[in-house]
Formats: sequence, C-alpha cells, structure tokens
Amino acid sequence: VMKVHWDIETAEKGGFDHFMLKEIYEQPKAIQDTLAGRIKEDKVDLSNEISLSKEDVQQIERIHFVACGTAYHAGLVGKYVFEKLTRIPVEVDVASEYRYREPIINERTLFIAVSQSGETADTLAALREAKQRGAKVLAITNVVGSSVAREADDVIITWAGPEIAVASTKAYTSQLIAIYLLGIYFAQQLEAKNVGELKEVVAQLQKLSEKAELLLQPEQVSIVANFAREIAKHQNLFFIGRGLDYAVALEGSLKLKEISYIHSEAYAAGELKHGTLALIEENIPVLAIATQKALYEKTVSNIQEVKARGAYVLGVTITGDTELNKSVDEVIHIPKTLDLLAPVLTVIPLQLFAYYACVERGYDVDKPRNLAKSVTVE
Amino acid sequence: VMKVHWDIETAEKGGFDHFMLKEIYEQPKAIQDTLAGRIKEDKVDLSNEISLSKEDVQQIERIHFVACGTAYHAGLVGKYVFEKLTRIPVEVDVASEYRYREPIINERTLFIAVSQSGETADTLAALREAKQRGAKVLAITNVVGSSVAREADDVIITWAGPEIAVASTKAYTSQLIAIYLLGIYFAQQLEAKNVGELKEVVAQLQKLSEKAELLLQPEQVSIVANFAREIAKHQNLFFIGRGLDYAVALEGSLKLKEISYIHSEAYAAGELKHGTLALIEENIPVLAIATQKALYEKTVSNIQEVKARGAYVLGVTITGDTELNKSVDEVIHIPKTLDLLAPVLTVIPLQLFAYYACVERGYDVDKPRNLAKSVTVE
Repeated sequence: VMKVHWDIETAEKGGFDHFMLKEIYEQPKAIQDTLAGRIKEDKVDLSNEISLSKEDVQQIERIHFVACGTAYHAGLVGKYVFEKLTRIPVEVDVASEYRYREPIINERTLFIAVSQSGETADTLAALREAKQRGAKVLAITNVVGSSVAREADDVIITWAGPEIAVASTKAYTSQLIAIYLLGIYFAQQLEAKNVGELKEVVAQLQKLSEKAELLLQPEQVSIVANFAREIAKHQNLFFIGRGLDYAVALEGSLKLKEISYIHSEAYAAGELKHGTLALIEENIPVLAIATQKALYEKTVSNIQEVKARGAYVLGVTITGDTELNKSVDEVIHIPKTLDLLAPVLTVIPLQLFAYYACVERGYDVDKPRNLAKSVTVE
Repeated sequence: VMKVHWDIETAEKGGFDHFMLKEIYEQPKAIQDTLAGRIKEDKVDLSNEISLSKEDVQQIERIHFVACGTAYHAGLVGKYVFEKLTRIPVEVDVASEYRYREPIINERTLFIAVSQSGETADTLAALREAKQRGAKVLAITNVVGSSVAREADDVIITWAGPEIAVASTKAYTSQLIAIYLLGIYFAQQLEAKNVGELKEVVAQLQKLSEKAELLLQPEQVSIVANFAREIAKHQNLFFIGRGLDYAVALEGSLKLKEISYIHSEAYAAGELKHGTLALIEENIPVLAIATQKALYEKTVSNIQEVKARGAYVLGVTITGDTELNKSVDEVIHIPKTLDLLAPVLTVIPLQLFAYYACVERGYDVDKPRNLAKSVTVE
C-alpha cells in the first residue's frame, strides 16, 4: 500500500498569481514523479502495478481509451502511441458517447479509463459497462483510492500532485507520461518493436522533464504571453495541426475556451479546405503546430493557405527549424525530441497562451464560469 | 457498363434562387434514385454491384471509412450503422490524417472511401495506400468513372445527380442511403441480425423519401428560415446532440460555417460540461438535436444546462414529442422513423438553416469564399 501526503500547504499558490500558472510550472516535476521508479535498466517496469501477464497482453485484440475533456485528449495521443508501439488497434471515445453506442467489447478488449479525479461520472459508468461486458479494465488516474482506481483491474497512478485549477494542465502531461510508459511496457511484452528503438523512446522520455523546464524560461514565456495579449480582443480563433499535433491542438483549444471564453476550434490542418477555410479572414488568429517531421511539409502548406487569407499566425515548431518563421508571424520553438513524445512539450506554450489570454481579458483563471473541477454528474 | 445522362439543363436552377436550395429540394428524389433497383422482396440486393462473396464478408475483421468534409460526416453515421447491423468494428478517419498515422490494415480490412466527386485527392491517396497494404477497397461516390470509382474493387454509385453548389446536400443524404444499403446487405450475408429486424429497416428505408418531402413543406421551412433570420447577426453558435444526432450536428455545423461564415461548432452534448459550457452565455444560439429515443432524456438534460445559461435554443425532435418544446425556444419536428435512419431526415432542416442564414447575411450561397467544389489537391 502506498501512502500519499497531500496537504493544504502543497496546494497553496507558492508565489504564483493563480493555481493554474503554478501547476503549469510544476509540470517538469510532475513528469519526473510519474516516471519515478518505473524505469529500470533502459526498460519500463510496471510489473508491480499491472497484473496483466505477458500472455494477457498478447491476447489483447483491441484497446478502448475512454475519457472526458482533457483526459479524452490524452486518450487521442494514446491511440497514436499504442498503435505505433504495439500495432494493436485503438479506439478513443468520449465517455458520454461510448456507453450509448453499443461498443463492440469482449474479453480480448482492453478498456483504459483516463480521469484526473477518478470520479468522472460518465467515465466511471463506461468503465462499469466495459467490465460487465468482459473487458479487462485499466485506469490512469491522479487520485489513489478514487472510484475509477478502485473499480479497475489495474491502475497507473499519475503522480502529478493535487490539481486545483479547473483547467487541467499537469494532470494532462502526467497522463501522457503514463500512456507512454504503458505503451512501451506493452511493446516490450509483445516484442513488437526492436529493443534498440524502444530503448531510445525510454531514453528520450527521461529527458522530457528537463526540456519542459526550457519552455518555462522567461524568454519563451514572453513570446507566448505577448501573442496572447495581442489576440485577446478576438472572439474567434483556430488551432491547426496534423497527426499528434492535431491531438495537442484540440487540447490547446479546449484550454483557451475553458478560461478565456474565446471561441477557439482545433482542426486537422488537411481538413480545413473541406469547409472551415471559409472562416479564415483578415487578422483571424491561428495557432499552427508543426512539430512532426513526417508531416512538416504538408502542415506548412496548410499554414500558407491560412496566411494567404490574411490569418495572423503563431507557429510552433522544433528547435533548429529556420523555415517556419518565413510562413508565420511569430514562432515558438520546442526542444528536439522524438515525434512521438512531442505532445508533452508542445502543450506547454498552449497552456501558457490560454492563461495569458484569460488574464488579459480579466477573467477568473482558476474558476471559469459554468465549469466544475471534476464532473461527478452525467 | 452503365451510362449516365447528365446535361446542362438538368444542372440549371429550375426556378430556385440558388443551386443549393434546388439540391436540398431534390433530396426526396435522390433518396429514391439511390434506392432504386437495390431492394428486392424486402431484402437489399447489391449482388450486381458488389463482388464480395458471403465468405468475403464473413472474413472482414474491421472496416475503415475514410473521407473528407461532408463525406466524412456520412462515414461517422456509417460507423453507427455498420457496428449496429454487423457488429464489425469500424473506424472513421479524415483522409488527410489516415495516410500519415500508419493505420493498421491487412487483407481482412475493408476500406470504404466516400467521395461525391470521386476525385478528392486525400481520399484517393488513402484508397491507394489501403489497397497497396492489402485491404479490400470499396467506394461510395456520385460520379461513375471517377478516379475513386475506377480504382476501388467495388463501387456503390449514389444516384444524386449532378451537385453544383459547393455546400453538399443531396450528395450527403444519398451517401447515407448507400451506407444503409451496404450495412443491411452485409448484415444479411452475416446473418448477424434477425430477419424481421432487417426487414423493418428495409421497409422504413423505403419511406424516407416521402418523409423528407414533408420536411420541405412551407410551414416547416418557415420555422427554420425564421430562426435562421433571427440568429443571422450572431458570430458564434453551437450544435449539440448525442450518438447519431451528434454525427448530424457535425454536418449541420459544417454547412453553416461553409456558407454563412458563422463560427459554429458541434459538440457531443454530454461533453459540453467538460469545457465548452464556459462559452454558453446569454442569447448564444444553440441547435439541439434530440431524435434518438434511447438518448432523449440525457439530451434534454444537456439542453436544460444550456438553457439555464441563457442560450436561445432551436430543438429538433420527432413528431409526437410534446416535451421538448418546454425546454427550448423553437422546435422542429422530424417525421417518425427508426433511430438508425433519422439522420437522413434530421439533416434537412439543418441544411435549410444554413441556407437561410447565408441568404440573410447576404453572402454568395453557391460559391462560398476560399472553397472549391471538389478538392483535387492535398
């Protein structure tokens, strides 16, 4: 039995103006804490936490990630990670939809619930349904002893520490870390990837905390804060990206909506021309993410499409890229890492962007209107 | 070889102000034409068009619907239809995303491309990729002899006739009809559903054309047109629904975006409280769809959440429902049909809504800015 020491003091703002900002800055530590004790000799070892045997893992035919809000966006990253590392087909569902669509579940289905609080009503109900239909049920949650943790067959705790702000930040990044750990662990069991490649993922995973720290340096933060102040008067905004960048764009957009009340929407960049491009007019702000090497050229071409219609663009790319700045108005650089791991870093400037847009607009950062921290009703 | 007779005359406006309105009104006929010759003695018979044998169908382990824009939204309905009728797991992907995420494909995968023009560049490229990786490839398209039709192993033509307006309407409803036909045909091969149930779906399918006609009667149209005129000054708007209603909400929202340039966004109604509810303020228009019996109560409770924050709501429900009008400002009734088939009817008032909002705002209905009818570049 593990014991957790969370008290009033650790939940205080510690010099920050808001809990949300404090929690954004706690991410390097949350990443480290979620990794701690789970990597041994270049390998992920979850054998103390996961009861699934090697044979059990080999039996899995499909994986269902089910969650709500920010945790759902972590699940979207999960699909990429698991399909890439394990080649097991993954579906990701919003919990309130999952239960009612008669999902195809059997005893070879692994159901993975993601919930910060472990008390999200829709997610809990979906978990019960999946379990009752014979699925193996795993939970990724931040709260030891929560309902989701208690009812799942296996649990991976995210050691993000207490999250007070309604808009989730460090819980999301630590959910991503848990997903990488689990994906790698399964890949090890399946021997689906060559050992060298997996070792490289493990090695890069351990460098993320330090790299996240770089994104919180004053010079980086001020680029984002300035852009946020400039666009704060706008009522509409778009995020675009492809692949994993699209998954992160969805999370960045949700963050902005939740606290700044700007109507932002995230689009798969290649899908814009099938409709939403009609909304791109002079000066509309666009956050364009281009961290994925294989998708870089296609994404830049989509960015040029919105620039040509007059959009005001903040681009997010990888350190060393000297091309993107030619196509955008401002640029943020993410430290180099594997494409697969980039979401952990990419999300940080997007969180800061939402934060500074909210502050500039004068709203209550930590307690946005209409929203509760954990949604315990359906 | 089938020959198609499309000429300049049939493409004229025939008394309507715009091609889009004409094409909305042509839907009862497009539905009929797409069904014609494909139902024999209470059963769907596609044996002249589909080369897949009963054994081939039984071999299918998973289905991938891949498409862009409106056709992608038809694919989302396809997931519900196929999973319900055949219990084969279905994934739906935006074509520009599908190719780059290393989808899990093998010879037991059925790939279904949906494209009105049959020339959509991303969809065609995805089709080639799937075929090259061993999938069986089927196309649903409106154009005989198009690239997608030529390269697929099997083709279901939607007999919607030429569609001129950039915003797709009758092509979408006829894609839905093709999806129902195919889903039922597969279910017959698999003997996955009892015969009586399938016969009922077939019988109800044949009544849709007549019911679509009812939605185009002047009294119905004027409720929608009035609501559209009232909200036309707004710059932001939400569509909500659950299950199949959510899939239709996405299509309604895209239609509105494409031609009226109102930033509308569709949300799974149960997901609102995980963030987007923060955007619901006094007088914001919401189109709330509640046609699905099993989801009705949950949806109404979500509608009440937005009403409580001051939203101005147009509800869409089934004829005979006398409850919803208590929770919304205006209500549209859809003729009774099976839950599974409701999307064909539900979309019609949403198309009219987009049309009248665009007219009220004074934009070019048939040629929206920045968009092309068929996107033949990636």
